[in-house]
Amino acid sequence: MTTHYFEHPLNEKTRIYLRVEALLNQLNIAAKFSDDMQHLTFYRSLFDIVEIFEQIQLKSELAKDIEKQRLAYRSWLNVEGVDQEMLKNVLSEVDAAHSGLMSAERFGQSLKEDRFLSAIRQRFNLPGGSCCFDLPALHHWLHLPIEKKRADANKWLSSLEPLSIALKQWLKLTRETGHFRPIQAKSGFYQSDADEANILRLELPVHHGVYPMISGHKNRFAIKFIDFESGQASTADIDFKLAVCC
Amino acid sequence: MTTHYFEHPLNEKTRIYLRVEALLNQLNIAAKFSDDMQHLTFYRSLFDIVEIFEQIQLKSELAKDIEKQRLAYRSWLNVEGVDQEMLKNVLSEVDAAHSGLMSAERFGQSLKEDRFLSAIRQRFNLPGGSCCFDLPALHHWLHLPIEKKRADANKWLSSLEPLSIALKQWLKLTRETGHFRPIQAKSGFYQSDADEANILRLELPVHHGVYPMISGHKNRFAIKFIDFESGQASTADIDFKLAVCC
Repeated sequence: MTTHYFEHPLNEKTRIYLRVEALLNQLNIAAKFSDDMQHLTFYRSLFDIVEIFEQIQLKSELAKDIEKQRLAYRSWLNVEGVDQEMLKNVLSEVDAAHSGLMSAERFGQSLKEDRFLSAIRQRFNLPGGSCCFDLPALHHWLHLPIEKKRADANKWLSSLEPLSIALKQWLKLTRETGHFRPIQAKSGFYQSDADEANILRLELPVHHGVYPMISGHKNRFAIKFIDFESGQASTADIDFKLAVCC
Repeated sequence: MTTHYFEHPLNEKTRIYLRVEALLNQLNIAAKFSDDMQHLTFYRSLFDIVEIFEQIQLKSELAKDIEKQRLAYRSWLNVEGVDQEMLKNVLSEVDAAHSGLMSAERFGQSLKEDRFLSAIRQRFNLPGGSCCFDLPALHHWLHLPIEKKRADANKWLSSLEPLSIALKQWLKLTRETGHFRPIQAKSGFYQSDADEANILRLELPVHHGVYPMISGHKNRFAIKFIDFESGQASTADIDFKLAVCC
């Protein structure tokens, strides 16, 4: 039975984290430039990330959140019944992510200073603006040997590495706090309280033919299931699994 | 020897035509959904085209231009030395493109009325906005069988078919009016007069390591070659080929 996985952030900051995670994934796949169009996804994702850097202080937000995780995990040191070796492993990963973050450049700085990227960024967002006459430098770049293109991509992506490591670490530990439980949404609706939660994760069988519309915040949330075909709220009882991650 | 091909429109309308042609090409490739990311290019290109429809009266502009081509080619009917059979073939293609255009819906109408497309269009342009929590309906759609996704894409693209045929026809005949001639840009610069030209086409050997910056209008244009590595105007003599298309 095929299952959909949905994740929903319960605050604005986590919303940004999940978007950045998705963009980093897209970047890593597209950086292979294995067909004629992956460069479109690559540059779009790269410029989207730079735009997010301009909108929020991602580095300091993430450093604060990693620090909170570190304190929470430290409080388990020398507590009886806690696997100390595993805990120390987690703590050393969190330490590494945090110090990598602290010694990193201001996010996006080298990308914004890159002459080639700056030159193409503005026009790239025009509708159909990646044509050769709009971006002749990009058109030239596209004809460079694949090794050169991948080397450029790796250079740009390496500046995002401290962000990538810290974000993965924070999301991994956050996701691990949640455990999937079976739930039934009566008449397509479910609501519940949460306790300082960051992410809801849903496992939803495809055969229901519905997708979730989720609203809420860290302490309370509601899930309404929408019938994909009709676009209307479903009135069926929907069985799914839910994990609330803090 | 590898060669770059550059095209440059000499008026705003042709600029739009070439952008739409590029978007239609991207759509046709991406509509195979043969990897996990082609849907990003597909929807982005589709929404870019809809945005262009909102900005200019593409249908009536194109109809006028096709009509002009028809009159121009008709004037060669019964002229001695002109291959009449070939001419009649061209004219029947132009007629077909024109009548397809005239009987087509207002460009983009069915795309804008599509509930699914309308729902995802707004958020799609947010940086990183194609996440499952921003677009749960799209996330559901992505898990549908590939046949269903391709059928949806074909349905949407079929509404663009009259545009695609007419645009291809106009661009084909326009490009055919130009003939590549060898040119040398002394100290990286070349300028010339044109006569109601629409498109410049360049064949440029890769080994020069330069790309063209072109300015001008239908009666006069200038080409400055830029060194890709330094980003500065090249001072070398650059051999290339140029076709001026009316």
